[in-house]
Amino acid sequence: MSHLPTPKFNFDETIATKFLKNRSGAGGLHEYLGFRIVNVGPGTMQGQLDVREELLTPIGNMHGGVLSAFCDHMLGCVCYPVMKKGQWAATTEFKINLTAPVTTGTIDAYATIVNITRTQAVVSIELVNEGRLAAVAQGSVTIRDPRK
Amino acid sequence: MSHLPTPKFNFDETIATKFLKNRSGAGGLHEYLGFRIVNVGPGTMQGQLDVREELLTPIGNMHGGVLSAFCDHMLGCVCYPVMKKGQWAATTEFKINLTAPVTTGTIDAYATIVNITRTQAVVSIELVNEGRLAAVAQGSVTIRDPRK
Amino acid sequence: MSHLPTPKFNFDETIATKFLKNRSGAGGLHEYLGFRIVNVGPGTMQGQLDVREELLTPIGNMHGGVLSAFCDHMLGCVCYPVMKKGQWAATTEFKINLTAPVTTGTIDAYATIVNITRTQAVVSIELVNEGRLAAVAQGSVTIRDPRK
Amino acid sequence: MSHLPTPKFNFDETIATKFLKNRSGAGGLHEYLGFRIVNVGPGTMQGQLDVREELLTPIGNMHGGVLSAFCDHMLGCVCYPVMKKGQWAATTEFKINLTAPVTTGTIDAYATIVNITRTQAVVSIELVNEGRLAAVAQGSVTIRDPRK
Repeated sequence: MSHLPTPKFNFDETIATKFLKNRSGAGGLHEYLGFRIVNVGPGTMQGQLDVREELLTPIGNMHGGVLSAFCDHMLGCVCYPVMKKGQWAATTEFKINLTAPVTTGTIDAYATIVNITRTQAVVSIELVNEGRLAAVAQGSVTIRDPRK
Repeated sequence: MSHLPTPKFNFDETIATKFLKNRSGAGGLHEYLGFRIVNVGPGTMQGQLDVREELLTPIGNMHGGVLSAFCDHMLGCVCYPVMKKGQWAATTEFKINLTAPVTTGTIDAYATIVNITRTQAVVSIELVNEGRLAAVAQGSVTIRDPRK
Repeated sequence: MSHLPTPKFNFDETIATKFLKNRSGAGGLHEYLGFRIVNVGPGTMQGQLDVREELLTPIGNMHGGVLSAFCDHMLGCVCYPVMKKGQWAATTEFKINLTAPVTTGTIDAYATIVNITRTQAVVSIELVNEGRLAAVAQGSVTIRDPRK
Repeated sequence: MSHLPTPKFNFDETIATKFLKNRSGAGGLHEYLGFRIVNVGPGTMQGQLDVREELLTPIGNMHGGVLSAFCDHMLGCVCYPVMKKGQWAATTEFKINLTAPVTTGTIDAYATIVNITRTQAVVSIELVNEGRLAAVAQGSVTIRDPRK
């Protein structure tokens, strides 16, 4: 991919740093499932998730639902450091292809903003496990101005 | 929808009953997130999920990732009672549109097989919360014969 | 599907009638590929397309690209009769599953708005050919107010 | 993207060359809409399409259906040079996000196989027009052995 120049982003280091601290103590799904953010750049974000027993199917594979939830999570998060102060983002829709079973180790999620306008971002995500592509996703996020 | 006669399914009541018992004690993601199956028919399945604190975003909405995971779960489950003995199903891909925020109560998931062949099923899913459509999804499941 | 009451729509008969007349003479892709609108209701629209040689693949099936284009077309069109005067709609994204090859006859497309807000509609589409489901699609349309 | 080593492909130069010749005279949708293949590599393919009047909407933009059809076309084509002799590929499903209106010039489509197994390939596609991303798509192709 990348047949186009990388979009220019207004990158807010302060917000990026907040994501890297994984907002510990705030609770909610990202803690319950164990999503953490390990790298943030302008229009990119890397997350990690460890395979563990609660996240498996009865036959011992990572449940596809966890991979889907991880993509949904990254979709929204990657937008915050490049949005204007006070704006918020919500996943509107996405599509995921599950490409290989995951049974052990860590899953790295690489999210990249491929297009952004005033009201919407389109994001691509790759999930990698043990050197293999586990899933690939594409979706969009609605960006809204602060409620006045 | 439903501009076609309902497909004919070979419906296995024994497997349907197993799903209705929610395989309690088996552990795994469906218990961890709280997915339960409440109705099973030929090519249809209804699931339920209660909103609770661990499943929210920091701003207090049900995390879209939970809705995605619920769709992924229903996609595979709805196929089992109409598959041949020993076959297994795995979600290949799906797409979800999130249509309304969920903050309280129960989410009902209605999965319907819209097409099935020897090797693949296409499934539609509606998630309903407090009388509103919360999400709608469409995806496909690969059906495999038993490993010999 | 249809586990919810049908949404209430403001249905504009005048616009519906314009679509039924298939805007002949206006030219453009719908004429070039042969899409026609045969039924319009509040939040629903039926289109038709005849299989013909220019639309096939080299091995003689209807090209999936035509089915995709037909879905994209219906996605936008179904919204016009329920939008406010002067608003316009553009397909933002959609997903299609191709479920059976098409080789002859007519394809009926049934589009249904499953959710609509002030700025977006989510639409489901079924393509039916010779009594079989040929494709099923789900996507969303951005609705914009008139440019002042 | 590209957080993984490029997959190894068995690349058939003879088939690649056939695609580059655009099978002129064979007719069918790719000629009717004007899709041509201009570059082929192992797991990659570049296509081109010129904007012209028959492909527009009544308001003068390239119809999103043409962009969808182009993606569907590239999805299948990119697989042929890396498949085994006699195998055939059919688009199973794909998802497209339309990111900018197209009104003039040429559209370049860049297709990349991101994952391939014995029976399925997952492909990403970027459509670029006048230096802007016009659409991005992700989908899968079923690969079948020759009918005996």
